[in-house]
Amino acid sequence: MASLQDIGVAAGINSLTALIFLMVFAILRLQPVNDRIYFPKWYLKGIRASPISSGSLKKIVNLDPKMYLKFWNWMPAALRMPEPELIDHAGLDSAVYIRIYLLGLKIFVPITVLAFVVLVPVNWTNNTLEELKDVTFSDLDKLSISNVPAGSSRFWVHIGMIYVFSFWTMYKLYKEYKIIATMRLHFLASENRRPDQYTVLVKNVPSDPDESVSEHVDHFFVVNHPDHYLTHQVAYNANHLATLVENKKSLHNWLTYYQNKYERDPSKKPTIKTGFWGLWGQRVDAINYYAAEISKLSEEEDAEREKVMSDPKAIIPAAFVSFKSRWGAAVCAQTQQTSNPTIWLTEWAPEPRDVYWRNLAIPYVELNVRRFLVAVALFFLVFFFMIPITIVQSIANLEGIEKVLPFLKPVIEAKIIKSFIQGFLPGIALKIFLILLPTLLMFMSKIEGFTSLSSLERRSASKYHKFILVNVFLGSIVAGTALQQIHEFLNQSPAEIPKIVGVSIPMKATFFISYIMVDGWAGIAGEILRLVPFVMFHIKNTFLVKTEKDREEAMDPGSLTFAISEPRIQLYFLLGLVYAPVSPILLPFIVVFFAFAYVVFRHQVINVYDQKYESGASFWPDVHVRIMIGLVISQLLLLGLLSTKEAGETTPFLIALPLLTIWFHLFCKGRFESAFVKFPLQDAMIKDTLEKAREPDLNLKAFLEDAYIHPIFKGGEFEKPILDEESHPMVATKRNSRMGSKRVSSEGSTKLLSG
Amino acid sequence: MASLQDIGVAAGINSLTALIFLMVFAILRLQPVNDRIYFPKWYLKGIRASPISSGSLKKIVNLDPKMYLKFWNWMPAALRMPEPELIDHAGLDSAVYIRIYLLGLKIFVPITVLAFVVLVPVNWTNNTLEELKDVTFSDLDKLSISNVPAGSSRFWVHIGMIYVFSFWTMYKLYKEYKIIATMRLHFLASENRRPDQYTVLVKNVPSDPDESVSEHVDHFFVVNHPDHYLTHQVAYNANHLATLVENKKSLHNWLTYYQNKYERDPSKKPTIKTGFWGLWGQRVDAINYYAAEISKLSEEEDAEREKVMSDPKAIIPAAFVSFKSRWGAAVCAQTQQTSNPTIWLTEWAPEPRDVYWRNLAIPYVELNVRRFLVAVALFFLVFFFMIPITIVQSIANLEGIEKVLPFLKPVIEAKIIKSFIQGFLPGIALKIFLILLPTLLMFMSKIEGFTSLSSLERRSASKYHKFILVNVFLGSIVAGTALQQIHEFLNQSPAEIPKIVGVSIPMKATFFISYIMVDGWAGIAGEILRLVPFVMFHIKNTFLVKTEKDREEAMDPGSLTFAISEPRIQLYFLLGLVYAPVSPILLPFIVVFFAFAYVVFRHQVINVYDQKYESGASFWPDVHVRIMIGLVISQLLLLGLLSTKEAGETTPFLIALPLLTIWFHLFCKGRFESAFVKFPLQDAMIKDTLEKAREPDLNLKAFLEDAYIHPIFKGGEFEKPILDEESHPMVATKRNSRMGSKRVSSEGSTKLLSG
Repeated sequence: MASLQDIGVAAGINSLTALIFLMVFAILRLQPVNDRIYFPKWYLKGIRASPISSGSLKKIVNLDPKMYLKFWNWMPAALRMPEPELIDHAGLDSAVYIRIYLLGLKIFVPITVLAFVVLVPVNWTNNTLEELKDVTFSDLDKLSISNVPAGSSRFWVHIGMIYVFSFWTMYKLYKEYKIIATMRLHFLASENRRPDQYTVLVKNVPSDPDESVSEHVDHFFVVNHPDHYLTHQVAYNANHLATLVENKKSLHNWLTYYQNKYERDPSKKPTIKTGFWGLWGQRVDAINYYAAEISKLSEEEDAEREKVMSDPKAIIPAAFVSFKSRWGAAVCAQTQQTSNPTIWLTEWAPEPRDVYWRNLAIPYVELNVRRFLVAVALFFLVFFFMIPITIVQSIANLEGIEKVLPFLKPVIEAKIIKSFIQGFLPGIALKIFLILLPTLLMFMSKIEGFTSLSSLERRSASKYHKFILVNVFLGSIVAGTALQQIHEFLNQSPAEIPKIVGVSIPMKATFFISYIMVDGWAGIAGEILRLVPFVMFHIKNTFLVKTEKDREEAMDPGSLTFAISEPRIQLYFLLGLVYAPVSPILLPFIVVFFAFAYVVFRHQVINVYDQKYESGASFWPDVHVRIMIGLVISQLLLLGLLSTKEAGETTPFLIALPLLTIWFHLFCKGRFESAFVKFPLQDAMIKDTLEKAREPDLNLKAFLEDAYIHPIFKGGEFEKPILDEESHPMVATKRNSRMGSKRVSSEGSTKLLSG
Repeated sequence: MASLQDIGVAAGINSLTALIFLMVFAILRLQPVNDRIYFPKWYLKGIRASPISSGSLKKIVNLDPKMYLKFWNWMPAALRMPEPELIDHAGLDSAVYIRIYLLGLKIFVPITVLAFVVLVPVNWTNNTLEELKDVTFSDLDKLSISNVPAGSSRFWVHIGMIYVFSFWTMYKLYKEYKIIATMRLHFLASENRRPDQYTVLVKNVPSDPDESVSEHVDHFFVVNHPDHYLTHQVAYNANHLATLVENKKSLHNWLTYYQNKYERDPSKKPTIKTGFWGLWGQRVDAINYYAAEISKLSEEEDAEREKVMSDPKAIIPAAFVSFKSRWGAAVCAQTQQTSNPTIWLTEWAPEPRDVYWRNLAIPYVELNVRRFLVAVALFFLVFFFMIPITIVQSIANLEGIEKVLPFLKPVIEAKIIKSFIQGFLPGIALKIFLILLPTLLMFMSKIEGFTSLSSLERRSASKYHKFILVNVFLGSIVAGTALQQIHEFLNQSPAEIPKIVGVSIPMKATFFISYIMVDGWAGIAGEILRLVPFVMFHIKNTFLVKTEKDREEAMDPGSLTFAISEPRIQLYFLLGLVYAPVSPILLPFIVVFFAFAYVVFRHQVINVYDQKYESGASFWPDVHVRIMIGLVISQLLLLGLLSTKEAGETTPFLIALPLLTIWFHLFCKGRFESAFVKFPLQDAMIKDTLEKAREPDLNLKAFLEDAYIHPIFKGGEFEKPILDEESHPMVATKRNSRMGSKRVSSEGSTKLLSG
């Protein structure tokens, strides 16, 4: 294993990398030309205006030397904004998300101090490793539990410490859960009037031979909620229409591109080939071609729009039902409507931009079958994902490529290229798989039929967490593929498993330290640099942007990708908890990660990210339960490790701890979870009463009328200008901010892909 | 292992025992003097009147020879009553309970036929056992899977059959769940107006410095359910008062006893000693003594009653809140009231006689701690209960007794007594434990803080089921104590456990066949004979009964003891499912058990049992899930068994089956469970609307006023006559029917003890 010095050198290198990233960032962000990349949030808020419009050099490159001297300023600036203002500025989701890092600091700083004061001397002052003459060891090992001789009574110190660590973690978790539940309730209570406060999503409306869906919904709620029902909005199956609009937008981008090209070089009319990917077919004038295509698609779209609006079959058996008061909606969302629990299912409506429209109309039985199949698929994905990758790897070698594409043979046979490919190919299938994994998991979650983007993200995060737990954590500790592991575990006794894993834990400390430095430190520094959006913005800015509006669209503020980042943070919690009693040397690296990530993400949340929706921190129960899982794993692994160290009399103490931890989790769940899933009537009543007193003449029906119309129909107002463009192609588009938020969501999924 | 003939002989003997029991029952039930033992239900319903009052011989012994010829009549009579009438007569709980036996028949009759047609020939026509010359085997083994050679392709037939069996079981379970959900909804919908339909139990009312509990409840619900709140009833801590009343009743029994004694033999005044258990102390006149004691206790009771009614500290932070409509109550029961989920907890109120008053006031955190401790205690009880019993057994031997009680030495040393005690003692500690077990489990459930008798019974049943599963089923198959088993299982790989158990399954068929005959057949026949109530009634009738009312009290109709009997039925389901693919010879015995038990319990429900409460079959989800557990266990054990038979290629098919089964269970849960735990608003609205139309002037407040007063205060009306009795001891007591139902509940718990 590596010595302390080796670790020091590696830490130096990785810190340097991170530092260089930060330097580059600090310089790039000062250039006005990059302003939209590093401060998009302020543009979207309308506080910052584009500096490029006037066009002088000063507006592109920052020439003020004083600015460069203060380039570290962003860090204190990021920390300066107080939390209430942050919630106001970026929403509760973001504010709570960065509290996860803060929680990491709160948990691990005291644990690190304690571990270094107590455990390091206890481990260091033994000679076990020195006495074993045939074993090579390093200073690092002398700091770990490996240096304590078997059967030593010093293990009681470790037991005591894991009790202290566990109770400290639980105490902090309890406090945090309480704080965040309060924040959420306060946030919900102080929110402005919003349509989702009055609205319930009703799914599985039964079909009625005599009535349309709309009439049926109306009659049902008039009868069963006579004092509270106000109005409803049926949902349309506009999936095909949405695809058409999507296609048209892409064509429109191409049109703009060629128009720009023509403008810049009017001597040459741009042309394209009409065939597959522009490689084959007839060569035509590009601008005319795209203009014609767009107008064709527009007609098709109009027809489809008409069809959806008039065809009763396009109405799906789901509706957004609104009530006269928040109280009425809270009641309807929490109660069962009929004796058949597969029809008239009600749940609190997600906010309009959070709705995932495609999943509104899945019948009950189908939904159950889908969830079963996805669960089975997830199991195979987690444990057997290496099989298809190994197959692809065995096919995708040089000989295979030469066989399929013989004309590439001379190129491949060139020596440098050959060695490059041979070194590169084996890993590429795995790398591609890992890049695509979050998208795949999101796809699986969509199949499961959740109806809001926020719940889809939460489900994907839960799947990704399982994958990381098995393949990154367990997979790194126990050698061999997941498939071999599962086979081995099945043939081991349950008491053996923590032993096998536990014994390997101290030996893997070096590996995880470098993992934390590479993935954690450098990864976070890469996040703030925003390389992909940087490149994309400059490409778009060069080829597609004609107006201020276009430039706003070219911005890619991105958002916190909960489904990807949260499970990764969980790995650090897990590592910290597992290594705290075993090899405390790992802890400072975890602490640095949390501190650095906290500053970086606070900066990003303030200046960059634009959230797609606001769920009011409803993801916190998931975060909490996953840290608890990490805690229980750490306790079981220490139990396994100590049982090989002839410290048998400590076993009862170590068995009691996970039981207490699980009970604590159940207690927290009962105590706080309802704040995240239920809607107290008292709070609803207070808001209703206040509102009635303040605005006795409020026309709620008008307020709610269009709230839950499919965005594609709301688009009516902003799609029209595009149609106009066909006839006046030089006129600037007038897309409103709604379009902006739609674009964000589509690019959010691109980010999912590349994350 | 036993041969077919041995089994035949054993079956003959057990059938004969059962037959003798039935004959005795058939004769006893015809005697008018036993009428109140075998037909108490009809007396309680007021349909049958006591035949003893006139006193002739004919009224005591039945002399009509024709009646004796038709003594089998009770069986067809028991089957004749149609189900709707049965529900009307005995309640839904009872009607659904006997459907469990019917479900057993529905599942196992076709399985038995199929197993005998398909599996028996497949097993029989092998020669594996005959070829193994050093193994003794019997005809019985030739019928089982043991006779199929390792690696045979005949195992595919067994795989096919377990699929057929599983799907058939699931199909029947699904249909039954559906039927019972419908029955429950219909039952609830057709019920008469009852207080619990309008009432919600509110627990954990927070304390308020300025308001009493009653005012606080009133204000909270007036504000938060302004349109629906009607009234409320606070709950009192009357536990001490209840104890006093209980004690007085016992003293009163003694008074009656001595009065009767004196009446029959006026020459001798009965006297007692006042010391411990009447063994020491001053000798006084018994009648005067008890009269004085009762009047003393009555005064104490009055003081306590006054104290409870006037002392604000006697009001506990819980209340029964009633609403103007069923809709309002359904809403309140299903929603969360405040943002703090540990206060103002609402749940649908149990019906008044179902309330378990002592548990209404447990704070939230304490409740959580209690449940955790009970869970830990249950774990130790299930796995380590043999330890204290072994200790008791080692102490309670002859030498130990002689040491403690040396004066018994000459008696014990007598040869016959000595051998009897030596044969008897080792088992007695275990036997006493097993008899006390249900009471112990009920006590643990009470600690968990459930607030209704029905939920207490369900929780106890669930605990008892776990105990039977581990100690009767697993304990009989795998030799050794549960402690040894758990140690062994922990040191085996998870894949080994089904193997170890699975391999032993065919070998234990004979054991379980005799178990079924002794416990099942003879046990059921014993149930119909009602030996304990028979003896108790005649004792009471001789010594305590003076009036018709007293005689009615001396009856012990008992009730279906769900907490004890249901887990035992589950053992038969489990045995049937486990042995169906392995040793089909066991199935006919199971079928006979279910058929016999069905007839017997239908008779008992019609003629004997008097239920303490009506929960509307809310126990069905528990029954369903336990049969599902049995099904999964049977599948895993066959998987284990086949994996030792070199039938490896069948494994994937056997792994898929439990997954499908678990999914099916989740599907059923989602589809039906809500009918048992939630309260659809539509149904509430229908009943409300009908009621409003039929009785527009209904004074609901008056109807609900006294519904949820602690029974001890309602007792005010019937306790008074007892006070009068003190001055006129010869006047008959006038206890009303409420007293009757209270007595049933206290004797029901005696039954728990002896069951």
